[in-house]
Amino acid sequence: MTANKQDSATPHYDALCAAFKQIHHFQHLQALGDWDQATMMPSGGSQGRGEAMAELALHIHTLKTAPGLVDGLAAAGEEALTASQKANLREMRYHTLQATALPGELVQQKTALTYACEHAWRQQRKDNDWQGFRPNLEKVIALVREEAQILGEVQGLSPYDALLNKFEPGCQTAALDKVFGELRTWLPEMIQQVQAKQQSWPLAPVPHSKASAQQALNLDVMKLLGFDFNQGRLDTSSHPFSGGVPGDVRITTRYDEADFATSLYSTIHEVGHARYEQGLPIDWRGQPVGLARSMALHESQSLFFEMQLARSPAMIALLTEKINHHLGSQLTQESLIHLVQRVTPGLIRVDADEVTYPCHIMLRYEVEKGLIDKSLQVADLPEFWDNQMQSLLGLSTRGDDRNGCMQDIHWPVGELGYFPSYSLGAMYAAQFKASMVKALGDIDSLIEQGNITQVMDWLNQNIWSQGSLLTTDELVTQVTGEVLNPVHFKRHLEQRYLS
Amino acid sequence: MTANKQDSATPHYDALCAAFKQIHHFQHLQALGDWDQATMMPSGGSQGRGEAMAELALHIHTLKTAPGLVDGLAAAGEEALTASQKANLREMRYHTLQATALPGELVQQKTALTYACEHAWRQQRKDNDWQGFRPNLEKVIALVREEAQILGEVQGLSPYDALLNKFEPGCQTAALDKVFGELRTWLPEMIQQVQAKQQSWPLAPVPHSKASAQQALNLDVMKLLGFDFNQGRLDTSSHPFSGGVPGDVRITTRYDEADFATSLYSTIHEVGHARYEQGLPIDWRGQPVGLARSMALHESQSLFFEMQLARSPAMIALLTEKINHHLGSQLTQESLIHLVQRVTPGLIRVDADEVTYPCHIMLRYEVEKGLIDKSLQVADLPEFWDNQMQSLLGLSTRGDDRNGCMQDIHWPVGELGYFPSYSLGAMYAAQFKASMVKALGDIDSLIEQGNITQVMDWLNQNIWSQGSLLTTDELVTQVTGEVLNPVHFKRHLEQRYLS
Repeated sequence: MTANKQDSATPHYDALCAAFKQIHHFQHLQALGDWDQATMMPSGGSQGRGEAMAELALHIHTLKTAPGLVDGLAAAGEEALTASQKANLREMRYHTLQATALPGELVQQKTALTYACEHAWRQQRKDNDWQGFRPNLEKVIALVREEAQILGEVQGLSPYDALLNKFEPGCQTAALDKVFGELRTWLPEMIQQVQAKQQSWPLAPVPHSKASAQQALNLDVMKLLGFDFNQGRLDTSSHPFSGGVPGDVRITTRYDEADFATSLYSTIHEVGHARYEQGLPIDWRGQPVGLARSMALHESQSLFFEMQLARSPAMIALLTEKINHHLGSQLTQESLIHLVQRVTPGLIRVDADEVTYPCHIMLRYEVEKGLIDKSLQVADLPEFWDNQMQSLLGLSTRGDDRNGCMQDIHWPVGELGYFPSYSLGAMYAAQFKASMVKALGDIDSLIEQGNITQVMDWLNQNIWSQGSLLTTDELVTQVTGEVLNPVHFKRHLEQRYLS
Repeated sequence: MTANKQDSATPHYDALCAAFKQIHHFQHLQALGDWDQATMMPSGGSQGRGEAMAELALHIHTLKTAPGLVDGLAAAGEEALTASQKANLREMRYHTLQATALPGELVQQKTALTYACEHAWRQQRKDNDWQGFRPNLEKVIALVREEAQILGEVQGLSPYDALLNKFEPGCQTAALDKVFGELRTWLPEMIQQVQAKQQSWPLAPVPHSKASAQQALNLDVMKLLGFDFNQGRLDTSSHPFSGGVPGDVRITTRYDEADFATSLYSTIHEVGHARYEQGLPIDWRGQPVGLARSMALHESQSLFFEMQLARSPAMIALLTEKINHHLGSQLTQESLIHLVQRVTPGLIRVDADEVTYPCHIMLRYEVEKGLIDKSLQVADLPEFWDNQMQSLLGLSTRGDDRNGCMQDIHWPVGELGYFPSYSLGAMYAAQFKASMVKALGDIDSLIEQGNITQVMDWLNQNIWSQGSLLTTDELVTQVTGEVLNPVHFKRHLEQRYLS
């Protein structure tokens, strides 16, 4: 770095790159530790691992908030940078701000509070114990309000927008209100129409199958979807996730002998995340601009794979063949469609189909906005939840908070602002699909022949390889000619579920 | 740490403990990275992992050589410490000296040279290319001589003793010369006697078996040997090893369908290492005094399991049953004895039985001493090797350097001083066994009943739980009433192979 400072025309920028590369190396170890903890580590390892991971997190925080780094950001802005370097500097600023904006005391306080709240919640949820949960959540929300206030002030954003920005840089309430407001005008009715249409569907038979057979099926489908096994693995964990690093992406699934479809489709979902990571620009590996664009864009890829691709008739034809081959079953394409395209309003978000899913998100979005601007109090949450569920999905959660406002881990751990990413992802996926069809023509006939290379190449070229070189709006506009437009999602649902 | 400095009577010692705990946390991540690389990591992950591990190694080195830490060692020596704290301080001094004694430039030079030498050696060994290997090895040896010189000067040791001390604190050439000198007076003749006695042994049939069946056998035997699966795992790697951390010990083996015994006995060997690690004193976890005593003591435990225990008639009876159960074979105890107690002089150290093994070590010990005191030159190595092999095992390696002086990875990577630990371990194992029999009586009849708890408890109490609280000589004297005495090893071999 010192040598560079003398020789290079951009010494400050170069020093920042070296610093972020160093941070990236420690984050590599963090990703490995997280993955191992969820897949391999025996229970006796948890104390030692916990201490080591806390030490590592502290070290990364120290590196991210080093005064030299913060000072360098201003100095590098004065240097003659290329467009890509400028984009990298923009991302560096973003990550540094996220790391430095909050006082250490508040961060520590939040860690302790959310740890206690989450720990108690695990039992309280089982016990449907809202009264026990409520005071803990109130403390967490009070702290998150403070966090949002501070983050908003330093960024010139409203408090809730500042929370959205933690996961979705550039995402603002104004835009979300518009998008979700529109969704709300047609989605509840559409759900009823779809249900009416599917009323005659017979209950599809689900073949029982051993975990080893399901795993072989998953690996085969991963291969079909171009997962690079030289750059990743599939393992088992109690909650499926995608982890690791771009050159070594570790995805997981779980197995239930009575339900191969959940394992298969969760694997396909994670493959979407994985291919995005595997496709990120190698030249920028280790730099902030080389990272995936945002959580919504990440979800757009996993949902493109899981929903757009793997629930399309063409792919269902391919999958039926593979399922029958590996599981020794005799499913028909029609019965697989009945299995994976069935729309059923339910209380639990993570079990929801793609049509009802946005209702779960809109509800949480309204709650979070209200909690942060204080128009909603924690005490009123159960009633608000019940009302919204009635209006959106025609279901009641009165007295059933375990399946209502206590169902998600996000709030106990103080993670407000994340939920919208899920539905933004679904909408972006539909929008990308529409543009892809314009560019490539009839995708289904390609897929039917088992040729998904063109589909993958399009995603790779337009999205994966772009990393964070553009902002989300810039990228989406470059790829689709417009910013987020929920009409594509609506058309997708109409075409799949009502035509 | 700052608070402690004001409140504690031993502020400098406390600060050192905190520093070493921190180092331990990063070493935890290092152990995880190493294990993952050998067992799980896909090939595409190697570049990113290599960079992350190099960053981590640099960080650990920075922590180990921090000026505050070095200064603290002297200051802590003036504080009123308990005996255990003093032992911890002694171990801290040892580790700090190992990390700080060498100039950074020399360390970097060695890393680069040995990396190149090892890389070329992998092909040169296959090609039996001594002339290609020789100049590389000469460069490595020149640097190791320099390293030994410096390490010796700062510790007041001869250069080769300084190398021995890297792995075996307190181990000196004077003692080794005596031990190996004595071994040499009787071992070559004993090998001939054993061979004569075994001449009539029929070739034992080796059942073929799938890796999955061998794995089930290994897991079952691990359970029998008290391996704690809440604190560890068994996985597969191309070279078996024991890694991880005390609360989470990761051992590995490999599978060959035509040779279950190698997998089984290598697993048992690693379980010896693992139980030592799992039994280290929890109260001292993360501190230098909580680490295993030395490499020879570590080998003493793995060899106690592999040789003393698992090749004893009582254990062979138990193992025969388990083998037949898992592999569906019909081995007799006698045929298993013929399989795992056969003594055959051979060229390759890692394939050697316990009777001929020390010959391989004595040869290497003489080579290393000669190379470091310059009485032997690299150019003369093949001839020296051939002469020694003829005198020790009656075998020639003339023109066959690939199976002679080029067979081990240790010298290409510049690791001189390690080899003696293997044979010291075998001798310590025999000495511990003799003391155990004095204390517990007839161990074999306990084992025959599948009750090895008393054996394990004895090892745990006398060795594992002692960590590094005593020096090796102190510990061995405490347990056996004398320092290393090769007579126990001789008696063990006589009893097993000649009685």
